[in-house]
Amino acid sequence: MKARVHVMLKDGVLDPQGEAVRHALGHLGFSGVEGVRQGKVIELDLAATDKAAAEVEVAQMCDKLLANTVIEKYTVEIV
Amino acid sequence: MKARVHVMLKDGVLDPQGEAVRHALGHLGFSGVEGVRQGKVIELDLAATDKAAAEVEVAQMCDKLLANTVIEKYTVEIV
Repeated sequence: MKARVHVMLKDGVLDPQGEAVRHALGHLGFSGVEGVRQGKVIELDLAATDKAAAEVEVAQMCDKLLANTVIEKYTVEIV
Repeated sequence: MKARVHVMLKDGVLDPQGEAVRHALGHLGFSGVEGVRQGKVIELDLAATDKAAAEVEVAQMCDKLLANTVIEKYTVEIV
């Protein structure tokens, strides 16, 4: 079973990496970009076969390792 | 209009960051993780209103800046 985790900075947390990308895109001539946020995507191959249990386990992985929940939010998707 | 870009290393390209995550998850007791690949997700706020044109423009951004197409693949999703 595969799981995909998205980790993004919470709204309101400054994202300097995204800002840098927005500036660079402007310099390259892409003028219609109003905002950029950059985050991580983590794809996991899991041995588990129970979808609900896998979702709970991946959420625990996020809380313990994959995301810094003080400033980041995550979403888990089983694919 | 919002666009979401996923940038992942191509299959076959070694992903040391993903491997490090896999090892760390193992040490934390998550034994059922068989593989991890880590990539970037970039969310763009666009002034464009034409979905097809926006998709083409974002693909150009990927080719020019957001992805290293020698070793990375990307997908563009208009949301």
